Amino acid sequence: MAVTHNRRRTSTPAEAVEESLVAEKYAHKLIRTLRIRLDDRPGTFADVSTAIGRRGGLLGDIRRVAIDSHSVVREVTLYVDSVGHLDEILGDVAKLSGITVERVTDDVLELHRGGKLRLAAIPEIRTLQDLQMIYTPGVAGVCNHIVAHPEDFRRYTWVGNTVAIVTDGSAVLGLGNIGPRAALPVMEGKAVILNRFVGVGCVPILLDTQDADAIVETVQRIAPTFGIIMLEDIAAPKCFEIETRLASALPIPVFHDDQHGTAVVVLAAITNALSQANLELGRLRVVILGSGAAGATTARLLLAAGACDVTLCDRAGAIYAGRPEGMDDAKARIAAITNPQRRQGKPADVLRGAHVLIGLSSKGIVSAEMVGSMAPPRIVLALANPDPEISLREAVAAGAGVALDGRTVNNALAFPGIIRGTLDSGARAITETMKLAAAKAIAGQATEGLLLPSILDAAAHAAVAEAVAQAWRSGEASTRDQPRRRSRVKE
Amino acid sequence: MAVTHNRRRTSTPAEAVEESLVAEKYAHKLIRTLRIRLDDRPGTFADVSTAIGRRGGLLGDIRRVAIDSHSVVREVTLYVDSVGHLDEILGDVAKLSGITVERVTDDVLELHRGGKLRLAAIPEIRTLQDLQMIYTPGVAGVCNHIVAHPEDFRRYTWVGNTVAIVTDGSAVLGLGNIGPRAALPVMEGKAVILNRFVGVGCVPILLDTQDADAIVETVQRIAPTFGIIMLEDIAAPKCFEIETRLASALPIPVFHDDQHGTAVVVLAAITNALSQANLELGRLRVVILGSGAAGATTARLLLAAGACDVTLCDRAGAIYAGRPEGMDDAKARIAAITNPQRRQGKPADVLRGAHVLIGLSSKGIVSAEMVGSMAPPRIVLALANPDPEISLREAVAAGAGVALDGRTVNNALAFPGIIRGTLDSGARAITETMKLAAAKAIAGQATEGLLLPSILDAAAHAAVAEAVAQAWRSGEASTRDQPRRRSRVKE
Repeated sequence: MAVTHNRRRTSTPAEAVEESLVAEKYAHKLIRTLRIRLDDRPGTFADVSTAIGRRGGLLGDIRRVAIDSHSVVREVTLYVDSVGHLDEILGDVAKLSGITVERVTDDVLELHRGGKLRLAAIPEIRTLQDLQMIYTPGVAGVCNHIVAHPEDFRRYTWVGNTVAIVTDGSAVLGLGNIGPRAALPVMEGKAVILNRFVGVGCVPILLDTQDADAIVETVQRIAPTFGIIMLEDIAAPKCFEIETRLASALPIPVFHDDQHGTAVVVLAAITNALSQANLELGRLRVVILGSGAAGATTARLLLAAGACDVTLCDRAGAIYAGRPEGMDDAKARIAAITNPQRRQGKPADVLRGAHVLIGLSSKGIVSAEMVGSMAPPRIVLALANPDPEISLREAVAAGAGVALDGRTVNNALAFPGIIRGTLDSGARAITETMKLAAAKAIAGQATEGLLLPSILDAAAHAAVAEAVAQAWRSGEASTRDQPRRRSRVKE
Repeated sequence: MAVTHNRRRTSTPAEAVEESLVAEKYAHKLIRTLRIRLDDRPGTFADVSTAIGRRGGLLGDIRRVAIDSHSVVREVTLYVDSVGHLDEILGDVAKLSGITVERVTDDVLELHRGGKLRLAAIPEIRTLQDLQMIYTPGVAGVCNHIVAHPEDFRRYTWVGNTVAIVTDGSAVLGLGNIGPRAALPVMEGKAVILNRFVGVGCVPILLDTQDADAIVETVQRIAPTFGIIMLEDIAAPKCFEIETRLASALPIPVFHDDQHGTAVVVLAAITNALSQANLELGRLRVVILGSGAAGATTARLLLAAGACDVTLCDRAGAIYAGRPEGMDDAKARIAAITNPQRRQGKPADVLRGAHVLIGLSSKGIVSAEMVGSMAPPRIVLALANPDPEISLREAVAAGAGVALDGRTVNNALAFPGIIRGTLDSGARAITETMKLAAAKAIAGQATEGLLLPSILDAAAHAAVAEAVAQAWRSGEASTRDQPRRRSRVKE
């Protein structure tokens, strides 16, 4: 493939901008593989590459895959802007003599063909004896053991290493409400990440309802099958209610990654950015754009980590206690603990003089002037997906000391380790303390000069898992030691 | 291991009885592995084996696993009747000099430790480019493709090869209502069979409710995730209602193996037994003991296969149209199409002069006298699980021409091929025609002199899958060719 990004992500402005330029060049291209047969004489491939280049197509790898006495077959990776763009290029190539495009393949689609997950059996069945131990009559002994020792349920089933990833498809990536079926490739992708990074099994569950009550009820009923319930791509504000109700109803942890994964990685990035600049979170003013699933939860985690002045903005501007319009229960609750100065006004007003901007909203809503109006160190995390609130290049040009987007500040740094550590410790909930520990572990895994570790860094995921498990065990230990305080321990 | 049954199951009476004797000798034993350290001098192991034999323990494999200068360590497979029996033996062995039992292991339990299924990722993640193709931003293209082409949903997800196996744990094997959690080892076992025999992925779904309405509602809501819904170990009569309601509500097949898998294998066994004796199903009288999930459905399939005189019995005796007591909707429906002579009375009365007995009830309820009162060829399928209505030995001694129990007439011969064939053909339902085709394919795969193929015979499962897929395609083709008759086609 033409673009490989397997070095570590950078965080220094110049490198971040370079990354950004490379990524922006390819990010929204369609990738196709052309299988082209060319007469075997000098200059034929030059004709092809000229035709492609003239129309603005970008070439990736070019592989020679077959040769015969009078022709050569090459597979060419091609980046185009749209299906129309591809058709233009193919039209031009078709006019060339001695050149035939034999096949056009969509590589991304091909990678997803047949799905990205498979369920596999652990024991083999070679003899009837094997079958009798796995199934009847032997399995009855295992069932009876679980009846007699319910606490061994996880020990003799897959439940201790299996999580559900539940969606109603109401808020999928930047695609919106595309419904549960079209969301499945995303759920499978997340499951692949969990499996490859931390060895957890993850079952996508698509819900044929978008009603909050029905979702809560359904998940409660299927919960015995799983060790953790992950909620995914469920729209705000119902996602808050669903998570809260499920967490209180179920004896197993419930985790909404869009909220908590994002919050943890944001805190990790800010922790390292401030530490490099010798600044304290408690003395800085933070503005969060966006009141979706991630905004309020990120605000809560920053407060738990020591921030004192965090203000959220929605489309109507700053959210403050008692704002007369555009409020709902979730906003009222977050207003009660944020924006201590009760600032009002549009994002541009609130951003003036702020030190940290966390964008969790939508493409292009932050201008260079807004970044320029911030106070140093002007930390800009522009995390709208798939396009940031402001391009990193513009942000840096406008004076940002740190500028990162969603490709660096990526949930996938947090959720694998959090899920692994939660399963390993047998935690019954994912507490604020565990999330703080995860953020600290992520920050601690960043190598010299960088704000965050690479998503591909197995040691980082292992460190997060260990920190999360340890945080649960410490919490349990302190609760056990002080039984009288149990009811006052919020976690 | 001491007992290996990896030759083909037999069906001739003498061999069946021999099988039965071997199996009965070991079937209800507990299996333990003792790790024993013995002084390295002649006669120590003789002391151990004598002590075990004197208490009635059976020895399996004996492996020497370690040697040092003055002792030997052996692992011994031991079959005992109960935990108390094991304790007696261990007590006696402890009194022997120069002998120490270092560890006692439950092999079956060990095999189930950590569960028997795992979810695995298909694509690898080696580079950020891989991640971008599997997850954001690349996966968005796949989601958009499904939005634009909903018919490609299965092509680009795992759904086309994934089935749910749903239970409320209300009627598990011979264990009864042990609830969903204790039932999970059975569900995993079934999933292992599906995976190993026909490569299908199978997700256990444990329902935290035993209410029929709630089960129907919950399964409907999670159905988009799966290609087929298998219902498993749900008690009768609610299982009938649940299957019927789900089948009419969902666009995908619903399959209750306890009913249909059993019916298919019973029909296959009877087909071959009658063909060997040159008899026709339509001229014989069939009695089915048991009105649970399998009984009524087996009756229906036998009628579809040409049987004319089938009578079901429940605890109250023969079920007939208009019986004043002990009826429910399901029994009234089956009474309307069975027992044409409106026979009444206890099983012993109805069995007199019948040619075929299908036991789907409980241990020991059939006596030798009852078998003796039947008319030749006296085909006895004693399928109660885990203990048959009458032992095969007794049945043969009482004159049965064919006697089989649940170890030979096993659902696992039917459901893997039925599920594979249904997925492969894209069938929207599992029709009576498909089940008849499955039974015929199973019967056709039995090798010379046997009534059924081995469960371990991969070719048999493949033949069932092919026959089932073909039956659906033929049905579809004939429906397409005769559009006016569509509404009259029942399937």
